[in-house]
Amino acid sequence: MRLRNKPWAPQEIADNPHLIIPNPGDYKGKWNEYFSNDKPLYVEVGSGKGQFVTGMAEQHPDINVIGIEKYDSVIISALELMQEVKLPNVKMLKEDVNEITDFFGENEVDRLFINFTDPWPKNRHAKRRLTHEGFLKKYVEILKDGGEVHFKTDNRILFQYSLQSFSEFGFALKNISLDLHEDGLEGNVMTEYEEKFSRKGHPIYRLEAVWKK
Amino acid sequence: MRLRNKPWAPQEIADNPHLIIPNPGDYKGKWNEYFSNDKPLYVEVGSGKGQFVTGMAEQHPDINVIGIEKYDSVIISALELMQEVKLPNVKMLKEDVNEITDFFGENEVDRLFINFTDPWPKNRHAKRRLTHEGFLKKYVEILKDGGEVHFKTDNRILFQYSLQSFSEFGFALKNISLDLHEDGLEGNVMTEYEEKFSRKGHPIYRLEAVWKK
Ligand SMILES: C[S@@+](CC[C@H](N)C(=O)[O-])C[C@H]1O[C@@H](n2cnc3c(N)ncnc32)[C@H](O)[C@@H]1O
Ligand SMILES: C[S@@+](CC[C@H](N)C(=O)[O-])C[C@H]1O[C@@H](n2cnc3c(N)ncnc32)[C@H](O)[C@@H]1O
Repeated sequence: MRLRNKPWAPQEIADNPHLIIPNPGDYKGKWNEYFSNDKPLYVEVGSGKGQFVTGMAEQHPDINVIGIEKYDSVIISALELMQEVKLPNVKMLKEDVNEITDFFGENEVDRLFINFTDPWPKNRHAKRRLTHEGFLKKYVEILKDGGEVHFKTDNRILFQYSLQSFSEFGFALKNISLDLHEDGLEGNVMTEYEEKFSRKGHPIYRLEAVWKK
Repeated sequence: MRLRNKPWAPQEIADNPHLIIPNPGDYKGKWNEYFSNDKPLYVEVGSGKGQFVTGMAEQHPDINVIGIEKYDSVIISALELMQEVKLPNVKMLKEDVNEITDFFGENEVDRLFINFTDPWPKNRHAKRRLTHEGFLKKYVEILKDGGEVHFKTDNRILFQYSLQSFSEFGFALKNISLDLHEDGLEGNVMTEYEEKFSRKGHPIYRLEAVWKK
């Protein structure tokens, strides 16, 4: 994600706490109270400009969707998108995914999404990949029994790594596609990166990983 | 595998019981006695013309290798290859993989290989795929604790299916490659189909599935 300097971003973000929620730790284990309903909770990590979370929220009014993105200069676009669509069931956190267990309680999350996350190709950076077992350990803390992680990427090496990482951790894999747009997926919500890479003709890889406690 | 009529094949096979072993059930649980050594046992299912098993036997004199192929017209080529290489550690069975538990005892097999098996693309034929859970159930009976299945194919849909099948059954996946010849694999022994499909420019998919009892 290219980081353009957007000096107005921090103020704009601070001015919209109903869309980009400050101190999300306050709602840990209580997101249903926050949303004032009992809908399932979907969380996306590394949301970028928010096209996926807003698209999901639009397609699924019966679901609450929260995206996590750490950069001001990126999340500002997600803020603008949320202001545009005016949906009650999508929010963002300007936070680091490393701290995800501070924001969500045990068994609170129904489904986690990881889309086109940075591949960190060097072995010594493996720990930074959002599908590294260090992150999986955090995800399963907050996932419900039978909860799922849905992962998309155009990066073959990252996908190979992630298949193994999920499998060795004890997730069961299903609905694997090594060419998503060829196989088709009903209700697929495209992300910014997905549009860019599929336009270039890259195949898109996808898996679902199921967690049984 | 095209089946040319080879009327001499059955006689030739019957004349070489030291290479294509009749009544393999006699050695169930006793293959170390048969080979008169304590070497690990590798088994390939659906061996075709035997290039893989003879290649493996040549590369690994410290391993006993047995291939299973059900058709006379195909296994006859494997017989000729074994006669050529004259290795004591490679044998074939002219049998149906469906009966594999009749030929090998519990915990007798160290590693199983499935190479370019027929994809059976129709759903109603899924049970015939050598990576269907019906077959996996048989494989784990004969595999040692920590034993592995190594699988290669050029068929994307079969590979997707197989990743899920192994994973849901409880195998842990490792060393996954979605483009084997691009990633490279030390000591890779090419099969007949692998040579054919990689010449055509198809990527070769590969996985290792580990079984912990
Ligand atoms: C390559 S972009 C993909 C964006 C979007 N998901 C898509 O598919 O178009 C990855 C995004 O994840 C964010 N990200 C990476 N690691 C993160 C972390 N530990 N915490 C929060 N955001 C992170 C980056 O800032 C970047 O915006
Ligand atoms: C597509 S060929 C591949 C041959 C070889 N493994 C290769 O990679 O070149 C599959 C082979 O598996 C054999 N085969 C398929 N199902 C089998 C079964 N149930 N029992 C024994 N052999 C089988 C077929 O006869 C055929 O020769």
